[in-house]
Amino acid sequence: MTHDPTAAAGAHRRHDGRAPDQLRPVRITRGYTVHAEGSVLIEFGRTRVLCTASVEERVPPHKKGSGEGWVTAEYGMLPRATHTRSDREAARGKQSGRTQEIQRLIGRSLRAVFDLSALGERTITLDCDVLQADGGTRTAAITGAWVAAHDAVHQLLAEGKLQRSPILHPVAAVSVGIVGGVPVLDLDYVEDAGCETDMNVVMTGAGHFVELQGTAEGEPFSREDLQQLLALADGGIQQLIAMQRAALAGAEVG
Amino acid sequence: MTHDPTAAAGAHRRHDGRAPDQLRPVRITRGYTVHAEGSVLIEFGRTRVLCTASVEERVPPHKKGSGEGWVTAEYGMLPRATHTRSDREAARGKQSGRTQEIQRLIGRSLRAVFDLSALGERTITLDCDVLQADGGTRTAAITGAWVAAHDAVHQLLAEGKLQRSPILHPVAAVSVGIVGGVPVLDLDYVEDAGCETDMNVVMTGAGHFVELQGTAEGEPFSREDLQQLLALADGGIQQLIAMQRAALAGAEVG
Amino acid sequence: MTHDPTAAAGAHRRHDGRAPDQLRPVRITRGYTVHAEGSVLIEFGRTRVLCTASVEERVPPHKKGSGEGWVTAEYGMLPRATHTRSDREAARGKQSGRTQEIQRLIGRSLRAVFDLSALGERTITLDCDVLQADGGTRTAAITGAWVAAHDAVHQLLAEGKLQRSPILHPVAAVSVGIVGGVPVLDLDYVEDAGCETDMNVVMTGAGHFVELQGTAEGEPFSREDLQQLLALADGGIQQLIAMQRAALAGAEVG
Amino acid sequence: MTHDPTAAAGAHRRHDGRAPDQLRPVRITRGYTVHAEGSVLIEFGRTRVLCTASVEERVPPHKKGSGEGWVTAEYGMLPRATHTRSDREAARGKQSGRTQEIQRLIGRSLRAVFDLSALGERTITLDCDVLQADGGTRTAAITGAWVAAHDAVHQLLAEGKLQRSPILHPVAAVSVGIVGGVPVLDLDYVEDAGCETDMNVVMTGAGHFVELQGTAEGEPFSREDLQQLLALADGGIQQLIAMQRAALAGAEVG
Amino acid sequence: MTHDPTAAAGAHRRHDGRAPDQLRPVRITRGYTVHAEGSVLIEFGRTRVLCTASVEERVPPHKKGSGEGWVTAEYGMLPRATHTRSDREAARGKQSGRTQEIQRLIGRSLRAVFDLSALGERTITLDCDVLQADGGTRTAAITGAWVAAHDAVHQLLAEGKLQRSPILHPVAAVSVGIVGGVPVLDLDYVEDAGCETDMNVVMTGAGHFVELQGTAEGEPFSREDLQQLLALADGGIQQLIAMQRAALAGAEVG
Amino acid sequence: MTHDPTAAAGAHRRHDGRAPDQLRPVRITRGYTVHAEGSVLIEFGRTRVLCTASVEERVPPHKKGSGEGWVTAEYGMLPRATHTRSDREAARGKQSGRTQEIQRLIGRSLRAVFDLSALGERTITLDCDVLQADGGTRTAAITGAWVAAHDAVHQLLAEGKLQRSPILHPVAAVSVGIVGGVPVLDLDYVEDAGCETDMNVVMTGAGHFVELQGTAEGEPFSREDLQQLLALADGGIQQLIAMQRAALAGAEVG
Repeated sequence: MTHDPTAAAGAHRRHDGRAPDQLRPVRITRGYTVHAEGSVLIEFGRTRVLCTASVEERVPPHKKGSGEGWVTAEYGMLPRATHTRSDREAARGKQSGRTQEIQRLIGRSLRAVFDLSALGERTITLDCDVLQADGGTRTAAITGAWVAAHDAVHQLLAEGKLQRSPILHPVAAVSVGIVGGVPVLDLDYVEDAGCETDMNVVMTGAGHFVELQGTAEGEPFSREDLQQLLALADGGIQQLIAMQRAALAGAEVG
Repeated sequence: MTHDPTAAAGAHRRHDGRAPDQLRPVRITRGYTVHAEGSVLIEFGRTRVLCTASVEERVPPHKKGSGEGWVTAEYGMLPRATHTRSDREAARGKQSGRTQEIQRLIGRSLRAVFDLSALGERTITLDCDVLQADGGTRTAAITGAWVAAHDAVHQLLAEGKLQRSPILHPVAAVSVGIVGGVPVLDLDYVEDAGCETDMNVVMTGAGHFVELQGTAEGEPFSREDLQQLLALADGGIQQLIAMQRAALAGAEVG
Repeated sequence: MTHDPTAAAGAHRRHDGRAPDQLRPVRITRGYTVHAEGSVLIEFGRTRVLCTASVEERVPPHKKGSGEGWVTAEYGMLPRATHTRSDREAARGKQSGRTQEIQRLIGRSLRAVFDLSALGERTITLDCDVLQADGGTRTAAITGAWVAAHDAVHQLLAEGKLQRSPILHPVAAVSVGIVGGVPVLDLDYVEDAGCETDMNVVMTGAGHFVELQGTAEGEPFSREDLQQLLALADGGIQQLIAMQRAALAGAEVG
Repeated sequence: MTHDPTAAAGAHRRHDGRAPDQLRPVRITRGYTVHAEGSVLIEFGRTRVLCTASVEERVPPHKKGSGEGWVTAEYGMLPRATHTRSDREAARGKQSGRTQEIQRLIGRSLRAVFDLSALGERTITLDCDVLQADGGTRTAAITGAWVAAHDAVHQLLAEGKLQRSPILHPVAAVSVGIVGGVPVLDLDYVEDAGCETDMNVVMTGAGHFVELQGTAEGEPFSREDLQQLLALADGGIQQLIAMQRAALAGAEVG
Repeated sequence: MTHDPTAAAGAHRRHDGRAPDQLRPVRITRGYTVHAEGSVLIEFGRTRVLCTASVEERVPPHKKGSGEGWVTAEYGMLPRATHTRSDREAARGKQSGRTQEIQRLIGRSLRAVFDLSALGERTITLDCDVLQADGGTRTAAITGAWVAAHDAVHQLLAEGKLQRSPILHPVAAVSVGIVGGVPVLDLDYVEDAGCETDMNVVMTGAGHFVELQGTAEGEPFSREDLQQLLALADGGIQQLIAMQRAALAGAEVG
Repeated sequence: MTHDPTAAAGAHRRHDGRAPDQLRPVRITRGYTVHAEGSVLIEFGRTRVLCTASVEERVPPHKKGSGEGWVTAEYGMLPRATHTRSDREAARGKQSGRTQEIQRLIGRSLRAVFDLSALGERTITLDCDVLQADGGTRTAAITGAWVAAHDAVHQLLAEGKLQRSPILHPVAAVSVGIVGGVPVLDLDYVEDAGCETDMNVVMTGAGHFVELQGTAEGEPFSREDLQQLLALADGGIQQLIAMQRAALAGAEVG
């Protein structure tokens, strides 16, 4: 793959007018539904994911008696979240490989910033359901799930069930990719469908990696490409973490 | 079962302050998501259901070559739509009997007001996904699905794919029940959990029945109870159909 | 829908020569198989359903420790009970929505006439298997299952495991419908396939409703139609309950 | 294993009074249900199996275009056919290994006596459903299925769809085993549960083997034991085939 | 079926040059993989099956508290063990009837030579996975599984978990069949596909039968055919048991 | 996470004595089984994976009529490939999320180096079955699958079905990770279980990335850590590709 470094420098305009290093408009709405301990609607442009955090006073078998808790995630997409209707997984009787891959990624990303012993023997389940898809659903899900988890933990603290928060760091995620030879941040569906390289980056507030998953959709990519993509991701993540903090700075929810 | 007719006359107040014959606040938001041919968020109080209508230019095997179309529905509930988290059906690998019963009811209710030959050999699928549950999800789903179907049909007409609308009547649904001896309209979760009799009524604008499903949760109910419940339902349905019409009177969507 | 009230009055003759308010010949054979605590073959004309009641000294998880018992039902149809062979559900790997809907209906109908605390922490499972189908399998199943349940309870009383019967009322079921504009009782397959309205009614001996499920297959039906159908059902149910009593008046079985 | 040859010679009496080489009472009822092309209730003592033969004018993929037909079988047991209730396979979502083994055996046994090219490109499916089980369900099923298949073929001949019968031989099956050291014919449930060796033998009218399946439940058995068992089986099969012929000699059915 | 007894006497040559009563080259490799308590690669000509024996200190529910252990087997075939690729059963979501039949046969065959009370409350699972198939995979699996089970038992004895071996007899299996009218031993794939009769025989070192499964693929076979096949099988089994003993006479493994 | 750069420089010794940048002994055996178009046993130390390539003259639906072929992969692990026995996925009735994730990764990695239009409308399926697991099964699978695919393509060329090879680059994979603060190459099971960071890298012979998947198992990792890991991976991949070439330089197989 060859690409024009000048373009990447910012002269280039994307199909929706964004600069290469520009996120889509992000909106984080806490308390979106009433029953869950944490409930966040997160929007990355037209992508909308409802992330709920549910606290249950039990742990899966492999954690029983360990004194540690568990954090896990499930992911789903409404059949008509997408441009053409896709089959309902519950009707087909199984989750696709893609769904499982994504929910495992969300789960690992959240566990990476939890101190499971500080959580105690309870489980936080993060349900990330895509109401509308336009690229980047898994990165939006991780970013929103962290806010929902934070609200759930806040409630446990408020109820005196926890003395200190088991959350060690903020965590957020963003996609980067090479589109038409240009490294860009936060791909939407059109860019994602046509990109040469696609990478999902999950990072903490300190700029450290939690997960890194890059795939050459066309030509294999070079070490230099990788560096440019990581720099873009780093900038995007710092903005997302600032937005998470801003959202949490509003009145407590739930 | 005996109940106090005076109470039913209106003196009685329900746990949320409603009169026995009063609906919860209903809100119908068209164009809630962007991809579907019809997309409606319907709210019956705290119950919120996203109803999308998807048009596909193919029919199931039993309709192939018949010249007729098909209208069908699928129903789902987000795991944390409820007070305590329920299992995700896609993860469990099958839809519950309750889910199948509800989606079959929605499908029949909508087909009852469609002229399938006027639809032509295409399928409209109504996906009704409960974002938040507080009783009455199936009646909200039917009421909202009709609006979504109407928007999808409007688009087919606008595109010249249909010459006339295959929709014969408006259709809406509401629950009625006997709670503490008093017949009431549009039960919320608390009332539903404690009622003696629960009935879902699906009617057209002309006051005719499309579906009628009554269940004695406690004592079997009498013919006189039934009459009172039907009268309540009739009043509620007429209001819901007026709201559907008002929603459609707004600017066309999508 | 319009229909001729004179016809309904009895001048009308059905395809099999019955009067509109006439049941098919009903036969109830107790002790049809030897292992079950209750085993009843019930025939509504050519429809034949084997209903067995099995007593197990355990309850499902949601009843554990409650002091209450449970009554549940399962429904099946032999592959060649029908005119053309249908797939075996065990081979397909799942029960259809129709099957689940029916077995849930049977279970609710029976529970409605049981005092679950008087049953003690045990389960009665009613297996209703259709050997031959000709319309009305679910109503025959409910009617026969009650007799099988009665025999099972009788055995528990005889063994001293119960002091008094937990059965509160007799219960029976029948279908009614509008065929060619005429309200008729107990539809067979031919009538069922061609009817405008189809309703299943489950009632107690006292004429109270346990379940009521009506569906407009063609035109929506009016409140007046409903009244006529309910009157037909009421007459049919009283006859069926008399037949249940007559069957039980024979020598004890099993 | 050692056993007393004197006993086997006939002095021995079995728990139900039969001689070692005596079948249980066998009853074959043709036309037991009305829809199937062949429908036979076969009883080996208290074991009762309903065998239906369904003709369909299509073949499975591996026979398409071959000019040959197919004969296959499915087996099921009603949940309360047995002493204690067993799970319904349709509800569990899969057929047990035992069920599959039996239905494969029935299918192979019937195919062994069919000339599939003489059948033409159609399928005969033999559904064998156990209404009541008391040992020997698979052997009763094979014996009854052959009669049902014969009736179905007769109907195809009568309709002119076949010119000559594709059935080459009669086929029947019986179990033999060693119980308390004594070789016996046609084991019932009590004998089957306590036997040292259990063997199912499927033979033609000419005394040739179609299937032979022997299992040492306790001690391995000798070649001499085997000879005695085969002699018993041979006698039983000849009687069963005579009964099949007698049943078919009655008036034609269906 | 008629066949030439002279041919069977040995003048006949098979497609691979073997005499009718000749096994394919057999190779037994112990310690083929490192983790299992017993791990044996067995080869019957080009058929290669990896048999592992796993010891677990628990028993299935029906053995809990009985003081007895359990021996069971699972069978699988790699997708490209065969000439054309077959579907992966894990991907299809279920095991075929053939797979279940084979693994049940292996399990019964091994249990027949185990004293389950001498094993104590533990389970030995024999996983038989076919790496390459060329006929006779089930007989190779039984023969190899016994060696793997022996190694696992040896380890339990060496660790002092058992005082005496629960293995009562050696057991091995071989196929015999009638190919082109000639009874032959140990059929490969080509012979198996074209044979008239196919029989799998499982015997102990003392020449007693554990399992016997014969199927007429074409013409039903006579009692005389059976005797010839059993004689061939007897000779083959004695050779296989000698090979098992020779393999075990090597240095202890694992 | 902090780690000692001196250690990483090579002074450090791993639990098995390897240097940090040292691969385990790698062995590639072509023609391991006879039926598949390509069949390779690859060993990374004690990890052994059988990779077969199967060519089928058809493509999945989304490629029909496109003129392009398809390359896909399936992954499995024998139940006792691991230290303690794991459930057989075929018996459980579904593939785990981990299995699906791995087989999707293998499939993408191979497709990335194929020119699908040069392949023509045929499918190459790579079955990667783990016979023995000791860490790095997915990287061994990718490395071995490429050799198997190469052999399958060679056969298509030899048969004249292809004029030129559709393989664009060699591809291989290796894991890297941070263990006890030291970046190391090709982790075995013990290292994998205890590492802080785990990364799987798939690269071409030209040193470009095809896939990159890094996960912080403990502390999130820094950009600097990442650089060190990528340098290690780069060295390992170049060695693996040299070994693939050496293996292919032997006589043609199959």
